[in-house]
Amino acid sequence: MTEFELIRRLLEHIPGARTDVVLGAGDDAACLRPPPGRELVVSTDTLVAGVHFTPDVDPRALGHKALAVNLSDLAAMGAEPAWATLALTLPEADPAWVDGFAAGFGALAAEHGVALVGGDTTRGPLAVGVTVIGSIEPGRALRRDRAVPGDWICVSGALGEAGWWLTERRAGREPPPGNALDWPQPRVALGRALAGLAHAAIDVSDGLIADLGHILEASGVGASVYLDGLPLGAPLRAQPDRAAMLQLALTAGDDYELCFTVAEVDMARLDALQRRLGLPLSPIGRIEAKPGLRLLSEHAGALRIEAGGYDHFGRSG
Amino acid sequence: MTEFELIRRLLEHIPGARTDVVLGAGDDAACLRPPPGRELVVSTDTLVAGVHFTPDVDPRALGHKALAVNLSDLAAMGAEPAWATLALTLPEADPAWVDGFAAGFGALAAEHGVALVGGDTTRGPLAVGVTVIGSIEPGRALRRDRAVPGDWICVSGALGEAGWWLTERRAGREPPPGNALDWPQPRVALGRALAGLAHAAIDVSDGLIADLGHILEASGVGASVYLDGLPLGAPLRAQPDRAAMLQLALTAGDDYELCFTVAEVDMARLDALQRRLGLPLSPIGRIEAKPGLRLLSEHAGALRIEAGGYDHFGRSG
Repeated sequence: MTEFELIRRLLEHIPGARTDVVLGAGDDAACLRPPPGRELVVSTDTLVAGVHFTPDVDPRALGHKALAVNLSDLAAMGAEPAWATLALTLPEADPAWVDGFAAGFGALAAEHGVALVGGDTTRGPLAVGVTVIGSIEPGRALRRDRAVPGDWICVSGALGEAGWWLTERRAGREPPPGNALDWPQPRVALGRALAGLAHAAIDVSDGLIADLGHILEASGVGASVYLDGLPLGAPLRAQPDRAAMLQLALTAGDDYELCFTVAEVDMARLDALQRRLGLPLSPIGRIEAKPGLRLLSEHAGALRIEAGGYDHFGRSG
Repeated sequence: MTEFELIRRLLEHIPGARTDVVLGAGDDAACLRPPPGRELVVSTDTLVAGVHFTPDVDPRALGHKALAVNLSDLAAMGAEPAWATLALTLPEADPAWVDGFAAGFGALAAEHGVALVGGDTTRGPLAVGVTVIGSIEPGRALRRDRAVPGDWICVSGALGEAGWWLTERRAGREPPPGNALDWPQPRVALGRALAGLAHAAIDVSDGLIADLGHILEASGVGASVYLDGLPLGAPLRAQPDRAAMLQLALTAGDDYELCFTVAEVDMARLDALQRRLGLPLSPIGRIEAKPGLRLLSEHAGALRIEAGGYDHFGRSG
């Protein structure tokens, strides 16, 4: 398979057209018509074999996830996604693998109305780099530095499920089809609804403690989180060791739920929102002026939370 | 060195501010204010160790080149660059290496007024992915599919010099500082000047024959190229084997000069332009209705041009 044939297969499965795409993939660069009067929102994320996934990953799931993690970043800003570019580095060009990857990427792109407008393909160690561009009404972006004491801290969906399936996979038990680890669902509709409603937001990619910590640090505030109200994923709720499951929910990454803060006066609007979206939105704590993160529970007296989050270079000292 | 420290070092050397950057690196995504009434131009290119460069490359040159090849794509569209994102995958986080890389990237970014607004860092096989976003007046983008029979074909600067230094390096002779292989100069000012003047354009990254071939194919035309007028790089002109040097100039990649087509009536404007830019702009052939590429010479009767360009996956069959 030539590079040309590889690109042809990608473009066959991934939508490339929108009315605002003046010139799509195939020239030196893409030409796009930005929506008038809005700000652009841009995110880049790379998935590398051996770090973010194993080389024998289902290519369809990899295609899905590579786009999903970027759409999740846009969701965490409250933005509406529009265009993507794809930098695909492959050790070999296997047609079935490329078709699977493109199908997974393409299905999620179609679901969110995203057009693939460019990128490149290179022979090398397996890695997928995606840049997504979207837009938002000026001044409405959900920043990390806007949390205010008194805000409720909320999370969408459930936590710890991706971490659970990662533990299972490492123990030799393959997760079921559609599992939260391989098939994260970016909360794009939620993010759009939160723009202008929430004060601060972030997506839970490194673990709740680490990611909420970014909001606290950027906003110069602290928080209390009520562990008894934490929404645990279904497989975690079935386990007897609740302390271990709380630890997973607090520190495992890859959930791609949104963590956001909302003024007390606006909490009533969340009820209508979670019904409209069919997505649980759980209040889990409060923003406080006092710095630091306090984990409170009436039941988990023995809980010890180890350092959360993932630092790609922390181990090199 | 932690991931945080690595990012801090990058941002120390690479400019991140422009008046149109509402929110730069450090949140889930960047927020940017697009220039009103213009189209966006977006390009992505990845450099992978062992493919595009050797792992022992000077990090300063790598930082320069990773941005340069993307700016070259924008130049080939006639666009004005504005913002970049950087996806850096590193086997280890060596502070001196990171500082060198950031200095090379940052100096070129500053020269072209480009702000780094986001990206990510990952531990893994050395690779650098860059996405550059710029803008252009609507309808003025220099596309590949607009060449017209009768157009002059022109190239900027000189050809084959990057290929020459690559050959030298492979023979164990290290190219001099500032050489065209490691330090390509993206022709951004030329691209801006050609927008609205040239009919079609491309940057010479895969070799003149391959890249001019893309213009011919996209435009549905053919061409004659006059080899005796080809501007050869200085080290090539000093070599006795002119046929071999012509072959290098026609097929070696990495020159990052612009190849563009101009109507006969506009050729007079090129003279003023090359004086203003201090950059030679050489007419090397004509676009013709008859398909195919004809290489003409009064001296190089024995010239044999082998298949040009580089296909990342061509050898896998």
